[in-house]
Amino acid sequence: MSKWVTAYAPASIGNLGVGFDMLGLALQGAGDRVSARRVDSTGISVAEVRGPDGKPHPALSTNPLENTASIAAQALWDAQSEPGGAELRVFKGVPLQSGMGSSASSAVAGVVAVNALLAKPLPIAELLTYALAGEKYASGGLHADNVAPSLLGGLVLCPPALLPATISLPVPTGVSAVLLHPELQVSTAAARSKLATRYSIDQWLEQQGYLAGFIAACAANDINLIRDTLKDVVIEPQRSAAVSCFVEVKSAALQAGALGCSLSGSGPSIFALAEHHHARNIASAMEQACSMTGIECQSWVSPMTAPGAYVETEE
Amino acid sequence: MSKWVTAYAPASIGNLGVGFDMLGLALQGAGDRVSARRVDSTGISVAEVRGPDGKPHPALSTNPLENTASIAAQALWDAQSEPGGAELRVFKGVPLQSGMGSSASSAVAGVVAVNALLAKPLPIAELLTYALAGEKYASGGLHADNVAPSLLGGLVLCPPALLPATISLPVPTGVSAVLLHPELQVSTAAARSKLATRYSIDQWLEQQGYLAGFIAACAANDINLIRDTLKDVVIEPQRSAAVSCFVEVKSAALQAGALGCSLSGSGPSIFALAEHHHARNIASAMEQACSMTGIECQSWVSPMTAPGAYVETEE
Repeated sequence: MSKWVTAYAPASIGNLGVGFDMLGLALQGAGDRVSARRVDSTGISVAEVRGPDGKPHPALSTNPLENTASIAAQALWDAQSEPGGAELRVFKGVPLQSGMGSSASSAVAGVVAVNALLAKPLPIAELLTYALAGEKYASGGLHADNVAPSLLGGLVLCPPALLPATISLPVPTGVSAVLLHPELQVSTAAARSKLATRYSIDQWLEQQGYLAGFIAACAANDINLIRDTLKDVVIEPQRSAAVSCFVEVKSAALQAGALGCSLSGSGPSIFALAEHHHARNIASAMEQACSMTGIECQSWVSPMTAPGAYVETEE
Repeated sequence: MSKWVTAYAPASIGNLGVGFDMLGLALQGAGDRVSARRVDSTGISVAEVRGPDGKPHPALSTNPLENTASIAAQALWDAQSEPGGAELRVFKGVPLQSGMGSSASSAVAGVVAVNALLAKPLPIAELLTYALAGEKYASGGLHADNVAPSLLGGLVLCPPALLPATISLPVPTGVSAVLLHPELQVSTAAARSKLATRYSIDQWLEQQGYLAGFIAACAANDINLIRDTLKDVVIEPQRSAAVSCFVEVKSAALQAGALGCSLSGSGPSIFALAEHHHARNIASAMEQACSMTGIECQSWVSPMTAPGAYVETEE
């Protein structure tokens, strides 16, 4: 029998509030696994998709044309003109439509696993293009703010105009990410289609100024400047109403000392950045505020240096 | 007689192409001087404004309400509730309406000179607010991309939403600025009034991505990334037609190896960033291209670490 290769790819915080479509952060503690092995049939197939409970996933298909893991893996397979095929088993750890980059995690784990089956595996950074092919299926756009941090780890700047190049940013020391996932679902593609398509020069410049300042703040390790710039004045106001607990959770995070708080991706997940010693308290405050609105939730605290995808086992 | 204090403030490259209204670079080799002394009459007056030839400036007024040096100095004087007044002599070294931050240089030199007359002079960085008062008179907007580098030196990020705070950025080693001033005049206020007021989300994100990448590139000292991101796809296309030599000069700069080339402020001046060892050649190529279009010109080569304003003499 051919060997099974299992790859892990973390969840991620898309946009990171301040950098719509171009900034993302890897999250430690939640991720997807994809196992892959060579088979004689041609192309990539999906043997099974299982949920966190170990049972067949109720929502995800094993049709290889409808799963981001197989779509991404197939793109890599085709580009390498690899003969034969591979079979995938997908283990979803990231909740769907959560704003935690679920489709990106599967796409990244899929390409990283299948890459290890190749005669000549590619360097990890070169897999971005193929992972993006999977992500594009799920979200409808070519943006890498989940795929890039899931693949590469840490904080990644990925302006669409520079793809497939991405920029791994220095992260401030002593700062953690907090992520709260309320038990709600938001469709990324639907959320995107509702955004205004034109903006005033003042809106554009205000948001651009925050992003520029945030990147400078990360490079200079300037905590106060992170607090002054971690803002989304353009996208968040258009999306937050779809997340019924948002106002309460954000308010609780800021009151507990968060440096900033916004939607993770298109939501419903909500993230905050915080100094290490406040992070656990802030997570508790966000959970409590969410529960008070009657919505179940779960939270994670993660360093800003969370590792990206890797091959976990080959056996 | 009370002493004369003379302050120097450099010219500057507003926008630096990639950061409309929020990024600026000090320029070495061109600047304004303002001399100030205490007088018994109340408030700030202007005794004379002289041009580079030492003669009374043909275009600038000695009406203190119409000169950025005196307007800025008066704002500082008022804020400090200083009794009496001061008299200024303004020596213009920066050509008017050149895109070299002429009005900002005078405003900065004015406040720095008058500050030295105060019983308790303020730290230089605290003078920004007052220099901005002068700049606002000239350009009609509250943006600091000329005033901040002229005051503080080097490369400064100054998003309007964060003012009066500004962010001095690290600069890449081995990179120089080249500035070409064609003998044309463009009114900043008029250029501004012609800009489109609304932009598509794609335009906004493309330009924001370049700025974010450029700042990351400066912090990481990544010359190739500077080349990939030093672009203005939004403002330059709207303004460059007003500068008849622009296409030729930009093309010459890029052919000679510039990392990027765009308008300085609202033009007509044109700047390039370049690796040190190419900078002189690039300046020559830009001059030659400009001359070929029949327009007289002058150029400067400056380090990206040019100093900001300072008190030159007190006597």
